[in-house]
Amino acid sequence: MSVNQENELARDVRTGFQEMTASRLVAYLAAMPEVVERLGSRRGLWKVREVGSGEPNRVFLVESPKGGVCAKQALPGTRLADYDAPLPPERAAFEEAALTLEGRFAPRRVPEIIHYDFEQFLIVTERLHPHVTLREGLAAGRRFPALAEQIAEFLARTLFFSSDLGMPGPEKRERVAYFCANLEPCLLREKETFSEPYTENEHAHWTSPQLDETVAQIRRDEDLKRAIATLELKFRAEPQALLHGNLHTGSIMVTEHDTRVIDPAFATFGPMGVDVGELVGGLLLAYFALDGRAPSKDTDDAQAAWLLEVIEQVWTGFAERFVRLWREEQTGDAFPRALFEGPDGRDSLARAQTDYLRHVFVDSLRFAGSAMIRLTVGRSRAPELLDIADVEQRARCERRVLFLARELIKDAHHVSEITEVTSVARQVREDRLGAGDPEPSPE
Amino acid sequence: MSVNQENELARDVRTGFQEMTASRLVAYLAAMPEVVERLGSRRGLWKVREVGSGEPNRVFLVESPKGGVCAKQALPGTRLADYDAPLPPERAAFEEAALTLEGRFAPRRVPEIIHYDFEQFLIVTERLHPHVTLREGLAAGRRFPALAEQIAEFLARTLFFSSDLGMPGPEKRERVAYFCANLEPCLLREKETFSEPYTENEHAHWTSPQLDETVAQIRRDEDLKRAIATLELKFRAEPQALLHGNLHTGSIMVTEHDTRVIDPAFATFGPMGVDVGELVGGLLLAYFALDGRAPSKDTDDAQAAWLLEVIEQVWTGFAERFVRLWREEQTGDAFPRALFEGPDGRDSLARAQTDYLRHVFVDSLRFAGSAMIRLTVGRSRAPELLDIADVEQRARCERRVLFLARELIKDAHHVSEITEVTSVARQVREDRLGAGDPEPSPE
Repeated sequence: MSVNQENELARDVRTGFQEMTASRLVAYLAAMPEVVERLGSRRGLWKVREVGSGEPNRVFLVESPKGGVCAKQALPGTRLADYDAPLPPERAAFEEAALTLEGRFAPRRVPEIIHYDFEQFLIVTERLHPHVTLREGLAAGRRFPALAEQIAEFLARTLFFSSDLGMPGPEKRERVAYFCANLEPCLLREKETFSEPYTENEHAHWTSPQLDETVAQIRRDEDLKRAIATLELKFRAEPQALLHGNLHTGSIMVTEHDTRVIDPAFATFGPMGVDVGELVGGLLLAYFALDGRAPSKDTDDAQAAWLLEVIEQVWTGFAERFVRLWREEQTGDAFPRALFEGPDGRDSLARAQTDYLRHVFVDSLRFAGSAMIRLTVGRSRAPELLDIADVEQRARCERRVLFLARELIKDAHHVSEITEVTSVARQVREDRLGAGDPEPSPE
Repeated sequence: MSVNQENELARDVRTGFQEMTASRLVAYLAAMPEVVERLGSRRGLWKVREVGSGEPNRVFLVESPKGGVCAKQALPGTRLADYDAPLPPERAAFEEAALTLEGRFAPRRVPEIIHYDFEQFLIVTERLHPHVTLREGLAAGRRFPALAEQIAEFLARTLFFSSDLGMPGPEKRERVAYFCANLEPCLLREKETFSEPYTENEHAHWTSPQLDETVAQIRRDEDLKRAIATLELKFRAEPQALLHGNLHTGSIMVTEHDTRVIDPAFATFGPMGVDVGELVGGLLLAYFALDGRAPSKDTDDAQAAWLLEVIEQVWTGFAERFVRLWREEQTGDAFPRALFEGPDGRDSLARAQTDYLRHVFVDSLRFAGSAMIRLTVGRSRAPELLDIADVEQRARCERRVLFLARELIKDAHHVSEITEVTSVARQVREDRLGAGDPEPSPE
């Protein structure tokens, strides 16, 4: 038994941690009046089902004719992969802290927390119903009219109010310090995003041999790798705002009318572009993955056009809301009002706002590109791509993802408008840029 | 009695804190073998003298024919000014932590720590002898041949090894979190540097009425104020490296052959340009202040030429050392070696290093400018200027300081080489740019 395992067991005994089971959960929840209020007092009508794989978290839905709750427990000593250090169960505390802050800043955009158990690393929230993950919804060919506006609202409000524009300096320093301790998710994110796709190692995987030459080209692209290293440094050393940290299509729950963001276990302070880019990159990837589905031409084209619209509306909606919050609800200490008085001061502040958003825009495109590469050439590839059964077709989709990703990372500073990105995406999908073809081998 | 005062007293009783006096100090130190070794066991030969004003710290030198030590105690409840919140005595713990790290990274450039007393907030270090502060040395017309090289060594080593280039990610996140709690010095620094000189308030002072119009112009300069607000945001949100945080000419102890940096009570993680700029700005200010001294033409001109040389050598020496450390002693996680292999990788890394240093250079010039303005139009003005008895002459020197400072803040991105800065400084001092003249009032 290793020292680590001994420590783990010792902690379990000391804290009274016990892995939750479906059968114990009902009694556990029945002691909470706020749960009983939602589910009704007739316990015989409560139905418990476990969702997800059980690792690294156990997630249960408890439902009755009256309503439902969701219980999520972080397991100690679990690993995302064999070669990783175990994720400490205290990640649940960071998730709860992030969810609480997000709920304060963007109340309608996250599930409501009902209870948090520090000893059991267990979070009880409202059950979202009839929501599906955005990933599932897209795979089913659906469109979600409220998505763009509501996810822009989530991004603008959570990022603004946790930045120095929306959060006073002493509180921000305290929260930055707190989330510095959410270490393991950050280490994992750094390895899988900024290192493994670009270097010889055993953890990154891709569709082989179809993508071998493309991956080799990526690993020979010095400008790309230098841009990636610079991006990683920004991730490490610029705590601009509290990030969700894992805003892929599986972390967003949707209906036609409602959008909620779940699972902020990777929360940390970092550049806003990480969250905006993870979302935009995930949507671009989903767009290219459409061609791998069993064809249903009409639906697919409508969904494709809608996805590009969502990407455009997410950015413009985010930027407009962010500037409006800055003008109307500036509660942080940066860019103090006293420095921008009178008509000239207002003009100057407007210019500062434009400059600020310009930096977030360029960051977002670069982080979008790095997310797209991670999800195509990485340890945790996107289900949108992996589910494409025809390997040649999958490879064609993936080459398009990688083509646009490289452009975004290297040339983001030359892009002025989000519509330039969607326009290139459209051309790439129509193979007008040859991006779906295999890379020629060097002579 | 306020709640704060009650808390303060309660803590004093609880911790056993006792304000140190010269008479108690000998018995206190005699119990420490490492002090007795330095001073000898004949206590009758130990001489204690208090240096400094007693607020916000009590500082004692204890000397014997054999050697000496320095004891510095942070007093609870002290304020730097009436209108400030009291500085907590725990600042001594941050000072000790910073001094320990600086000593590890740049061993010969800080005083050696002999003892730290957590209960008494008291640091015992070696006595530096026959050192004087750089401020005193400059005022006496002296030059220090070792200064430029040794202070460049201090800057390069402390900033490199506390950055993501020299410090592994988990350790850096832990230290960033720790120093986030050194809050009060940061709040003070933000107010006095980035706010008070630029807004109507009662705390900023300047030579009046001579500088009234110049200050009014500064406060109308929208481009300057926007640049200052942007600089403050960088100070708040970019923990690039562990800063000394207060690197003025009074924090540097010198002899002809030795240079040591003391008093890192403002230590926090921030942009490297803060420390480099504070030093460069302080030296530029000292350069312009020369003309306010009782003239001694030959000495003054030699010292003036030397000061500009020091400024040039500080930057070039810092940059050269920093890149050498990056090439030879990279022990952090940023810009991982695996991304920069082979001849092309080496070229790419060299380009990344040039880009990195370019950003530090521009930051440094801007922070230099902001330090020069704070020290001329602020709550704690530079003794170099205040000591100029002839008010008209002082105002002339100060206008030159402010002229160059504004240029640096607004136009740093157009400056390629440090010699461009020293060249403009020379022209300003020779009044070739009219910078010593009173500003014309607007019609």
